[in-house]
Amino acid sequence: MDINWIYLAGEWIGTAAFAVSGAMVAVNKRNDIFGVLLLAIFTALGGGVIRDMLIGDLPPRIFGNFHYVLLAMVCALLVFFFARINKDRFLKEEKHIEKINNIFDAIGLGVFAVNGARIGLDAGFGGNIFMLTTLGMVTAVGGGMLRDVLIREMPFVLSKRVYAVAAICGALVFSVLVRLGVSSVLAYGIGWAITTMLRLLATAFRWNLPKAF
Amino acid sequence: MDINWIYLAGEWIGTAAFAVSGAMVAVNKRNDIFGVLLLAIFTALGGGVIRDMLIGDLPPRIFGNFHYVLLAMVCALLVFFFARINKDRFLKEEKHIEKINNIFDAIGLGVFAVNGARIGLDAGFGGNIFMLTTLGMVTAVGGGMLRDVLIREMPFVLSKRVYAVAAICGALVFSVLVRLGVSSVLAYGIGWAITTMLRLLATAFRWNLPKAF
Amino acid sequence: MDINWIYLAGEWIGTAAFAVSGAMVAVNKRNDIFGVLLLAIFTALGGGVIRDMLIGDLPPRIFGNFHYVLLAMVCALLVFFFARINKDRFLKEEKHIEKINNIFDAIGLGVFAVNGARIGLDAGFGGNIFMLTTLGMVTAVGGGMLRDVLIREMPFVLSKRVYAVAAICGALVFSVLVRLGVSSVLAYGIGWAITTMLRLLATAFRWNLPKAF
Repeated sequence: MDINWIYLAGEWIGTAAFAVSGAMVAVNKRNDIFGVLLLAIFTALGGGVIRDMLIGDLPPRIFGNFHYVLLAMVCALLVFFFARINKDRFLKEEKHIEKINNIFDAIGLGVFAVNGARIGLDAGFGGNIFMLTTLGMVTAVGGGMLRDVLIREMPFVLSKRVYAVAAICGALVFSVLVRLGVSSVLAYGIGWAITTMLRLLATAFRWNLPKAF
Repeated sequence: MDINWIYLAGEWIGTAAFAVSGAMVAVNKRNDIFGVLLLAIFTALGGGVIRDMLIGDLPPRIFGNFHYVLLAMVCALLVFFFARINKDRFLKEEKHIEKINNIFDAIGLGVFAVNGARIGLDAGFGGNIFMLTTLGMVTAVGGGMLRDVLIREMPFVLSKRVYAVAAICGALVFSVLVRLGVSSVLAYGIGWAITTMLRLLATAFRWNLPKAF
Repeated sequence: MDINWIYLAGEWIGTAAFAVSGAMVAVNKRNDIFGVLLLAIFTALGGGVIRDMLIGDLPPRIFGNFHYVLLAMVCALLVFFFARINKDRFLKEEKHIEKINNIFDAIGLGVFAVNGARIGLDAGFGGNIFMLTTLGMVTAVGGGMLRDVLIREMPFVLSKRVYAVAAICGALVFSVLVRLGVSSVLAYGIGWAITTMLRLLATAFRWNLPKAF
């Protein structure tokens, strides 16, 4: 079996989920169609670009994988036209849509977290667990942070339920398992599952990290 | 004839136009003289720095071309002292000044869009039209986005009339023409004209891209 | 005598000071414990990461120096738990704390300014005073700018008393002295002292740079 198939499927699901989430935010902020496309692309692919800039893998690999940009654009256009045609439904069922979006987002977060760590591994940084974990986190939450900065929201990474922490856990578990000799595919699946599960549980049970006051 | 002369003239005009635009925003936001200088430099040169970081041309070429920084600083100081001496005129004629500024900005946008694509071409990415176009857009709008993020404005790239789209069109036309064998100087002029014209027309006729609602 | 000892001590003091400053801002903005850790790390280490990305020293050296991250995290946790346990004292004595923090911040600013220039020197850019000075400024104020953008404050670099200018002066003096043949350690100490003194004096005497109006 070609194990790359799993990585590829994961990346497509993650990209689509993050693009939908970015486009929905952009529509809600009353951006024009270009703004919707740009925010979807930033959300879906921004984390990977930052990761590639950090490890010096330049130009960022996204420039050689136009189909991810295309996928993000298609998702953004679907959201845009759905919102345009069903304005009332979009606004009325926003909470419902957000719930569905949250599930996709949790899946995307898991994929991107382990995938960032895996790319660090492939780039030869396997001896540095701290770096692999950071690359996983950056890949997973970097795009969302860019989006939040651009639309002038407080990046929810800083205050929202266990979001970056879930990404860190998955990337860390992946990195440690691979170091311990576990097969890369198995570690990939376990890390992905941990991040996605943590995030879904945190949403369902309204987990929050403690604040000072 | 030395064709580099045209590129050079374009870069000087673009840098000056963007620096003036950045400095005017900074003065309006009541920044001190250092803030005015910094925002002028960010607006004029930030897009090129991001482009160089993306293609791994490090350190960014601006570090070897101090005269561009100097030009941006001179423009910023001119704006600063003009505003300081003619406070009333600056505030009263703001709309008038903004109109003039818009024209320079459109010229700068055109130069920077084709120039970003040309630098990508020189760096050996001629086979990747998507990348050349993106580099052109980043060069043209990156500095303005940095400025908007720093002064906490919604980046107008996301919502303002055909701004980034004009840059994309010019960079795309340049990239395609060069690919088709058109001489680089001619393609440069055509791409530049397209971006600048689109932007001026969009301002004059208040074109906007559609919104979802 | 091992002169590296001085550089190391400086970096530890600077990192700790900036981490405390970032963590205090994060606590005040009601971020959760992860947000406090992240903002402390960004404030303390973000400037160095941007510097390394500019000179192409990738991955940024911070990935090979986990103890700086650890130091920033310990400082952040101390601030977090101090604030959690002494909420009333934290809020009541905020001004007092801010004063102490300002002193540490001035020390950190000085270290980071000369250190950024020194790293540029070691990377072979000694012939370019403009670049060394810029690298010093970026190292010193980059982390704070990132923090301000993330928490949606106007970066005080743009409007606050002689902050970036103090960093520029120290980095410039260091770069020029080294160029003139002064020993690197002596230049380091002088540059550091100049930045820290300028900043402390600016705070004490409420110096501000002129505004246009």
